[in-house]
Amino acid sequence: MVVREKILDMVIDCFKRHGAKRLDTPAFELKEMLTEKYGEDSGLIYDLKDQGGELLSLRYDLTVPFARYLAMNKVKRMKRYQVGKVWRRESPTIVQGRYREFCQCDFDIAGQFDPMIPDAECLKIMCEVLSGLQLGDFLIKVNDRRILDGILAVCAVPQSKFHAICSSIDKLDKIPWKDVRHEMVAKKGLAPEVADRIGDYVQRHGGVSLVEEMFQDSRLSQNKQALEGLGDLRLLFEYLTLFGIAEKISFDLSLARGLDYYTGVIYEAVLLQTPAQAEECLSVGSVAAGGRYDGLVGVFDPKGHTVPCVGLSIGVERIFAILEERMKTAGLKIRTTETQVFVATPQKNFLHERLKLISELWDAGIKAELLYKNNPKLLTQLHYCEHMGIPLVVIIGEQELKEGVIKLRSVASREEVAIKRENLVAEIQKKLSES
Amino acid sequence: MVVREKILDMVIDCFKRHGAKRLDTPAFELKEMLTEKYGEDSGLIYDLKDQGGELLSLRYDLTVPFARYLAMNKVKRMKRYQVGKVWRRESPTIVQGRYREFCQCDFDIAGQFDPMIPDAECLKIMCEVLSGLQLGDFLIKVNDRRILDGILAVCAVPQSKFHAICSSIDKLDKIPWKDVRHEMVAKKGLAPEVADRIGDYVQRHGGVSLVEEMFQDSRLSQNKQALEGLGDLRLLFEYLTLFGIAEKISFDLSLARGLDYYTGVIYEAVLLQTPAQAEECLSVGSVAAGGRYDGLVGVFDPKGHTVPCVGLSIGVERIFAILEERMKTAGLKIRTTETQVFVATPQKNFLHERLKLISELWDAGIKAELLYKNNPKLLTQLHYCEHMGIPLVVIIGEQELKEGVIKLRSVASREEVAIKRENLVAEIQKKLSES
Repeated sequence: MVVREKILDMVIDCFKRHGAKRLDTPAFELKEMLTEKYGEDSGLIYDLKDQGGELLSLRYDLTVPFARYLAMNKVKRMKRYQVGKVWRRESPTIVQGRYREFCQCDFDIAGQFDPMIPDAECLKIMCEVLSGLQLGDFLIKVNDRRILDGILAVCAVPQSKFHAICSSIDKLDKIPWKDVRHEMVAKKGLAPEVADRIGDYVQRHGGVSLVEEMFQDSRLSQNKQALEGLGDLRLLFEYLTLFGIAEKISFDLSLARGLDYYTGVIYEAVLLQTPAQAEECLSVGSVAAGGRYDGLVGVFDPKGHTVPCVGLSIGVERIFAILEERMKTAGLKIRTTETQVFVATPQKNFLHERLKLISELWDAGIKAELLYKNNPKLLTQLHYCEHMGIPLVVIIGEQELKEGVIKLRSVASREEVAIKRENLVAEIQKKLSES
Repeated sequence: MVVREKILDMVIDCFKRHGAKRLDTPAFELKEMLTEKYGEDSGLIYDLKDQGGELLSLRYDLTVPFARYLAMNKVKRMKRYQVGKVWRRESPTIVQGRYREFCQCDFDIAGQFDPMIPDAECLKIMCEVLSGLQLGDFLIKVNDRRILDGILAVCAVPQSKFHAICSSIDKLDKIPWKDVRHEMVAKKGLAPEVADRIGDYVQRHGGVSLVEEMFQDSRLSQNKQALEGLGDLRLLFEYLTLFGIAEKISFDLSLARGLDYYTGVIYEAVLLQTPAQAEECLSVGSVAAGGRYDGLVGVFDPKGHTVPCVGLSIGVERIFAILEERMKTAGLKIRTTETQVFVATPQKNFLHERLKLISELWDAGIKAELLYKNNPKLLTQLHYCEHMGIPLVVIIGEQELKEGVIKLRSVASREEVAIKRENLVAEIQKKLSES
């Protein structure tokens, strides 16, 4: 939980740095609002039992509720972030960081703006978060739904097969082309030569030069949609260069992203593993992803008025799984509490003094604990401090009470100093600020 | 959302000050785990639809899931806090701060300890939170389930009516005794003289002296359960005095608390309103509450092994409703974002410069925004700053570019100073640390 909180704090800090305000939407949505938004994954939605009233479902992500919120409140422009739980009916394979309940951290920009400026900011945010969390080297794959559709069109894939073929293409990051090709031909009924044509495109990735190359492609340059996508990507790379992050971005023609609502630029961040890591590490998939969804708000608006949106989601659960694994490997122990001072006594019948003392510490904002026992043994108390990683102990006994002092002990060095009772809080605060 | 976050931060800070670690449990529990834990309120639980697999319900509070967690993981000792959503099938009356989905902030101490030390800490925490939030004067009512049961027993209430009579008594903070008495007699079939005997007890409240008085009560002092409860309260007041909070606590014999799982000390904090406030203010009920539940963990343990627990819950939604109302009354405007600097230009074709500039600010950790337009008007940009409460504007134009400077404008004073381009980040950080 401590690591998890640190990750969330970092992500939220970054979202705030980019001027987003926090939004919170309810955990459940009307069932009908969620249907037909998630393509093949719709079966994973949790429905509530009909106990009278509306039919409700638990939210599946934070994007659809955000779009619903914009439409319902007629908001035309908003930069918001949201941190919340979402639910999916999956068999949990905890080792890969996929759960039935998990936390999502989303940042989205809604509104009609000049092209690619908000999109570039989203990619900048992804870079800032991933660099900030020190996850090692990473790469953000970028593509555009319109380019993908253009490719399928010029390769003569029947429109009815677009969906199925897209989901095959999306597997290229996990399985080799020949297996993807086999799936297209054998399972999805594509002509082998059509599959080969697709293969010529989707196995390519590169930087802005690949965008230019695709502009020159004799077939693709005939497709209006693809040209629009390529034009936007060219502009996007221009802005990414100004942001100093172009070298982190790869134009990857195989990136498809499963969700139905994307309409333009899509992106997905993956960690690059050194060969040594690759052996010991888990395969974690993407750690952040997002894209442009210009049509989704319109679906919820009674008159179909839409608001263009672009956003991103940070995969905090996966990031958490990675960091936890690394800490285990490194043998790092993480404190689960933040207690700064422990109040102890070596003698019997000192509960009253301990309670008075700890109350003073709490009132001064110092994080403090004691054992809930009338007469605990000193050794038990000191062991507790070592076990919990509490750095300081305040000790009060008969001798100290008589002399009007208390002893301040450092758990690590075992050094003890006597300080005046009335200087207790000041001395502790000084000690804490030094360390 | 901003006020809400501030409240949560304060509460969590306090929980950490008392050495609690954070725990998170899933939003749903097995349906059977929640049944028969909430008395009359069980009908308010949200169930999930049976889509195969286990029958699930949404959690109704954070206490039952905590007890389930302790039992399942055989944890014998834990001091945890939890912040999370809970769900209840109520008609939302938003004005009173009751919702179908709301956030709870719980702190609990589980384990076998010497009596009343953890209980006193829970009351101390409630005082710290309520003082810290500056909600005005407050009072914490304290009672003990065993004293209440003892009273009903010595007043000759049939055991089968204990529940019903308790829930009548619990209404004494909202309706006068004569109405409560009427309910007991007319609706719940109590003999009038029995009701009168109850009335003699439950209309009383006071400090530790009332505890001593009850010890002397000829009937109550014959009841073993009541004596145990009184003994614990006497000890509790001793510790509360050491914590310096005894004057905030009222022993209130009418406090019953609806939930079935409490077994000992129970408490509830209410805000004390000045007559002026009482007129304009909402009635908000309790803002924090809790108690001891020594039997709940045992219910979830296959062998019935139990772990004594005591805890508290902060009513953040109600507190939020109060603070929001006060801010409205005071005409305070709250910023929804934390943006520190806005990057503007008075000229056309300065998007590239703006993007480079803002990227530098972000990389330095400065919270910054710009308009997502190629050529926004300067007035539009300045209006945005005023509207959003952004204090500083960085202005770059042709003149500045030529001279290698940028202008730094204070939105409030409208003062502008030219600073060297390369000193930009340092100058802004200086300016921000001054304000």
